[in-house]
Amino acid sequence: AANKKLLILPGDGIGPEVMGQVQQVINWMDKRRAVTFDVETGLVGGAAIDAEGSPLADATMEKASNADAVLLGAVGGPKWDELPFEQKPERGLLRLRKEMELYANLRPALVFDALVEASTLKPEVVKGLDIMIVRELTGGIYFGEPRGIEDLPDGQRRGINTQVYTTNEIRRVAAVAFELARKRGKRVTSCEKANVMESGVLWRQEVQKLHDESFQDVALSHMYADNAAMQLVRNPKQFDVIVTDNLFGDILSDEAAMLTGSLGMLPSASLGDPDKHGRRQALYEPVHGSAPDIAGQDLANPIASLLSFAMALRYTFDLAEDADLIEQAVQRVLAGGLRTADIMSPGAAKVSTVTMGQAILRQL
Amino acid sequence: AANKKLLILPGDGIGPEVMGQVQQVINWMDKRRAVTFDVETGLVGGAAIDAEGSPLADATMEKASNADAVLLGAVGGPKWDELPFEQKPERGLLRLRKEMELYANLRPALVFDALVEASTLKPEVVKGLDIMIVRELTGGIYFGEPRGIEDLPDGQRRGINTQVYTTNEIRRVAAVAFELARKRGKRVTSCEKANVMESGVLWRQEVQKLHDESFQDVALSHMYADNAAMQLVRNPKQFDVIVTDNLFGDILSDEAAMLTGSLGMLPSASLGDPDKHGRRQALYEPVHGSAPDIAGQDLANPIASLLSFAMALRYTFDLAEDADLIEQAVQRVLAGGLRTADIMSPGAAKVSTVTMGQAILRQL
Ligand SMILES: CC(C)[C@H](C(=O)O)[C@@H](O)C(=O)O
Ligand SMILES: CC(C)[C@H](C(=O)O)[C@@H](O)C(=O)O
Repeated sequence: AANKKLLILPGDGIGPEVMGQVQQVINWMDKRRAVTFDVETGLVGGAAIDAEGSPLADATMEKASNADAVLLGAVGGPKWDELPFEQKPERGLLRLRKEMELYANLRPALVFDALVEASTLKPEVVKGLDIMIVRELTGGIYFGEPRGIEDLPDGQRRGINTQVYTTNEIRRVAAVAFELARKRGKRVTSCEKANVMESGVLWRQEVQKLHDESFQDVALSHMYADNAAMQLVRNPKQFDVIVTDNLFGDILSDEAAMLTGSLGMLPSASLGDPDKHGRRQALYEPVHGSAPDIAGQDLANPIASLLSFAMALRYTFDLAEDADLIEQAVQRVLAGGLRTADIMSPGAAKVSTVTMGQAILRQL
Repeated sequence: AANKKLLILPGDGIGPEVMGQVQQVINWMDKRRAVTFDVETGLVGGAAIDAEGSPLADATMEKASNADAVLLGAVGGPKWDELPFEQKPERGLLRLRKEMELYANLRPALVFDALVEASTLKPEVVKGLDIMIVRELTGGIYFGEPRGIEDLPDGQRRGINTQVYTTNEIRRVAAVAFELARKRGKRVTSCEKANVMESGVLWRQEVQKLHDESFQDVALSHMYADNAAMQLVRNPKQFDVIVTDNLFGDILSDEAAMLTGSLGMLPSASLGDPDKHGRRQALYEPVHGSAPDIAGQDLANPIASLLSFAMALRYTFDLAEDADLIEQAVQRVLAGGLRTADIMSPGAAKVSTVTMGQAILRQL
């Protein structure tokens, strides 16, 4: 088979460190498994601003579009906080999402048995938690026009953003959610504020229509986003798949991630439309941020990035077996008591980024 | 002194039951305290739709504007779910907020010592929790134009809402937050998505400006709304006062409320601009909804409504002593082991709405 084309964008903060561990696993696969990767690397975020003058160079954007999968570390940090809106590190990530048309963001919130105690919630509330949040990623208020800040005649200023969704934008992301639910608990909860926003009314209607047309084997319910924020705290295990828009998805997926208490463990995938071979444009990244406070100190948890790579193997390369290997290696290392600082608990052995990566490699 | 003018709008579901208990306390105050109330009642929400054909009649709107304070129960229920957007029960509440210009929504998230165990979070994470969320309530995407659903030439539909904030809208609600912080922990966290939304950039700038001009004695920090959703779960006690826009406030305040595990205990106040006597237009309501599943069964917890009335005494009528009396009566009844079903715990005595109301009255 032809080599698989990977683009690695380590980004800022702890990004380079955790992606270093991913590179080790890629090397191992090249040697030991029936697959080889062509790996390119590039800059994104603050690193790209510093070296190339913009948060995502056109050349990098082109490489991303041509790769089979993009693996991203994290972007942002205080160094670039004061930059004007259009030049911030985040724009690099948003450009990737938009130009690759990665409209479906898959964010699992999963509690590992070995880490139940890491949660601030009571163990019985989160043990076995396994939610998949499907967040719309290329539409809504993130990209809607008109937008901006304008001066008013009376000396005031006015800030404007536009939430906008079309039928097709809603249907294609809902389809991803329904298809995922079919392979899981067969339940989808769709979240909006249809009691307050017309865009939410349309969202609800279109999700319901698609369900009635093509996914009647999946149980669909609708929930206001504010209620969802409550229900995630009250009884998160009531959820299987949640589908929601870009902004609500941003907030609800972060809330759900934190329920697990182990952000450093959570991967994500951002997918586009299938091409004629059924393959989707794809970007994989950990849910955690660039964590500038611990960057460069060999303290970061590489597991979220490794599991993001496992997601790439599963979703982009159809290598479920290899993905399983990595996930099992992680489980065994955790069961063996190794912990990076972020998931440390009494009695466990605290290890560095590199040591954690090596331990997982050894299990492989 | 002239009689205080109260308008009671019981609304739907459990609204009438819980407001019935508030009426008892008002009667007691009329007899025993140095204050008398003129109480009018009116319909709002589904009850108003059924009886008067719209979720808030003009006559009721006028009464609300002329009252010193409005006490609201709750609105909404499955009976009215299929009504078109403009006729839903919620529109009654939104009209009250908008026409009374109640731009500052105060939503405390408070954990009562007796109810620490009601939370799904570990006791050490929430014990002593006392957050005040100040939510902007008359602007943003709830009211911005253009809005609606339009047909596209290709047969698709498009849903649109507009997030819009002006300098003054931001400053006046931030001022309420800073003033509250002065009487509390002197810390304000302002939440937006300034990394993604220009309206968030303006929000951040104006809150910072107002702080630097007039509230330097309060510590101000800025946090992205998604991070706030995480931090509320990770370590809620890091917050004192949170100020945020209408939509983020809707979600974050519900999340924060649920951290306490006892939604049935939480009051809220919605305040407008001070008039020449320093008095603000005001509406007080429990945080919980209309709970149609338990309506009419004498099961609901009246405490959130009673504490909302206590907030009215404190903020509108300057009767801090009377507010204290009610709050202390609630504390004592809880300490005595009485619980409505929603906050029931092993070993406590389960009581009905009416019994809980009477027990609190007896403590008074
Ligand atoms: C970095 C930022 C632009 C981004 C977002 O808001 O989408 C992040 O919070 C995320 O969830 O991936
Ligand atoms: C009922 C609904 C319109 C309302 C809102 O979204 O503001 C409610 O959720 C609230 O928070 O008071």
